[in-house]
Amino acid sequence: MTTKTTTIGILGAGQLARMLALAGLPLGLRFVVLDPAPDACAAVVSTHVVGGYGDRETLSRFAGMVDVVTYEFENVPAESVNYLAERVPVYPSPRALAASRDRFAEKSLFVELGIPTPKFIAVDGLDGLRAAVSEIGLPAVLKTRTLGYDGKGQSVIKRDDDIEGAWARAGGAPCVLETFVPFTREISVVVVRGRGGETRFYPIGENTHSGGILRHTVCCLDDPAQSAAEGLASRLLEHFGYVGVLALELFEVDGKLMANEMAPRVHNTGHWSIEGAQTSQFENHVRAVAGLPLGGTGAVCRSAMVNFIGTIPDAAEVLSVDGAHLHDYGKAPRPGRKLGHATVCGDSEGAVEAGLNELLRLTRNC
Amino acid sequence: MTTKTTTIGILGAGQLARMLALAGLPLGLRFVVLDPAPDACAAVVSTHVVGGYGDRETLSRFAGMVDVVTYEFENVPAESVNYLAERVPVYPSPRALAASRDRFAEKSLFVELGIPTPKFIAVDGLDGLRAAVSEIGLPAVLKTRTLGYDGKGQSVIKRDDDIEGAWARAGGAPCVLETFVPFTREISVVVVRGRGGETRFYPIGENTHSGGILRHTVCCLDDPAQSAAEGLASRLLEHFGYVGVLALELFEVDGKLMANEMAPRVHNTGHWSIEGAQTSQFENHVRAVAGLPLGGTGAVCRSAMVNFIGTIPDAAEVLSVDGAHLHDYGKAPRPGRKLGHATVCGDSEGAVEAGLNELLRLTRNC
Repeated sequence: MTTKTTTIGILGAGQLARMLALAGLPLGLRFVVLDPAPDACAAVVSTHVVGGYGDRETLSRFAGMVDVVTYEFENVPAESVNYLAERVPVYPSPRALAASRDRFAEKSLFVELGIPTPKFIAVDGLDGLRAAVSEIGLPAVLKTRTLGYDGKGQSVIKRDDDIEGAWARAGGAPCVLETFVPFTREISVVVVRGRGGETRFYPIGENTHSGGILRHTVCCLDDPAQSAAEGLASRLLEHFGYVGVLALELFEVDGKLMANEMAPRVHNTGHWSIEGAQTSQFENHVRAVAGLPLGGTGAVCRSAMVNFIGTIPDAAEVLSVDGAHLHDYGKAPRPGRKLGHATVCGDSEGAVEAGLNELLRLTRNC
Repeated sequence: MTTKTTTIGILGAGQLARMLALAGLPLGLRFVVLDPAPDACAAVVSTHVVGGYGDRETLSRFAGMVDVVTYEFENVPAESVNYLAERVPVYPSPRALAASRDRFAEKSLFVELGIPTPKFIAVDGLDGLRAAVSEIGLPAVLKTRTLGYDGKGQSVIKRDDDIEGAWARAGGAPCVLETFVPFTREISVVVVRGRGGETRFYPIGENTHSGGILRHTVCCLDDPAQSAAEGLASRLLEHFGYVGVLALELFEVDGKLMANEMAPRVHNTGHWSIEGAQTSQFENHVRAVAGLPLGGTGAVCRSAMVNFIGTIPDAAEVLSVDGAHLHDYGKAPRPGRKLGHATVCGDSEGAVEAGLNELLRLTRNC
């Protein structure tokens, strides 16, 4: 018996959409991506609707081409998502998207759900910022409430002298001021939940950022923080009646976890799962969104992932690293732009660490 | 540093080309497929040149679009491959293609290289067939020399009475008559060789055919026949200075191996490698053809593969089997047509066997 092919619409046609489509095509799914960029890198594996996220005519045409909608980034206009949700199912829930789009709403939700998070105060002007600094203390981090990613829109305030500059850099946008957390490590938990509530957690990843951008993630098997991280993410899943992949970034401080931010989508810190897990985060996200049974999330090996940012090494160099797999997104190089990543797999922590170091060396040389 | 993107041309745009492109896109490779069928299933992940394999204008255009050529089936006209080989590198070697296209040439090569194979005689007419039967004895198998696949063009001759019918079914085509081998099992070894001679063998597969079509393959870890199978395949690799994936199908008879046929391409009996091996046969083939370092061929789990022929079960049914992964080729159903496959992965032989049995039940119900 054969049934009608399910077509998944994705808002955004960057590397996450590309990897979703690569994972979903073998399942018999089709993909339509909406993105204003004519050279968007997911277009080679999907039907590309070129148009603005806020354009009703475009959204209407897009909705008519798909059975279900998902998204690869948080900053989709709320009205657009609501417009689509009146026409086709949208997963994850537009409520999760709304919460993650605004840092104040997100952190307020963490508090509401009893998820520990650094102290934070909404800030709308320089006077408010000074008052917030008095309240929270220094060091602190000023972040724009919306449109922040990869460290954009963030300033660390170490001394009172930094306040005016930080506010100027925010450009008058509504912000939150947060306590700067002296974390031991940054981890993230990636989890998938199906339409029927079935939930599967991936092993947590330990993340290293630099300049606000994720540089590499090491998949941690049997980590002592796994259970606590799962417990915190579960509160979000239940709150939203969540469908799809969710990532929750956490600071570990003195053995305790504090939520930094959530992403209602596949996440850079879960890219290792393509080779390192029984089923990748990309395949499990499309399975969930399409209403299909989920696949296993257990590790099939030890692994780590390295981002290629701004430049990408030659494929031959990457693949000469033992156990390395390359994901070149097919994007034009540009400073600070994520162009690809590599995963290194191995039998032991030592083997993965050796491969990780070789890959990191390549990122510095290229 | 970024270098020019390599574009791989594939003769044929069926499921093998589709899976090659799906595996190669993440490596930054581009694909152009040549196939006369406008609805060829690899077109969704590549640039599709619609045209005949024998059409010089089409071949010339195709050659101008690619850096290197490979193929997904053996029955490409020799003149077309030679025409392309004068313009761009063709891997695997056109000599390997020529040998595999003609069963008599293939089996003669096995003899030349000391690879055991069932007794065979070339047959060009009914009298010749009778003489060959006297020489070889019965039961025997009459096979057309060219254009045979999935059991097409084959007749088993059990009694003298079967001779005329078998010859009629061959339709006057040149044939070989082979001894019917009372094999214990059919296995295949899949191997990849890089441009520099680097060679990596996959664990052998144990294959079950029915009606001449492969139905399922179980990946065999630490099999006693592994080493002997590798030794036989190595003779072919060295003979051709081979580049790419090669599959050698073997009969096991009384603990000894005899070659049935070779395929100079990715092979249905290696499909389990997508989830079951460190690097799939598809990725390793494109790595080899593009001159990139090869990936590991070791198993990451126990696995087995089931073909979906003529009909394909619902994705939800397949994915509800624990450890199952689906590959729906996106082809229109037709009796006897390979529409997809599923791989089942597990920690133990028992888990894989249970999953395999569930999948086989689905193939009977759908």
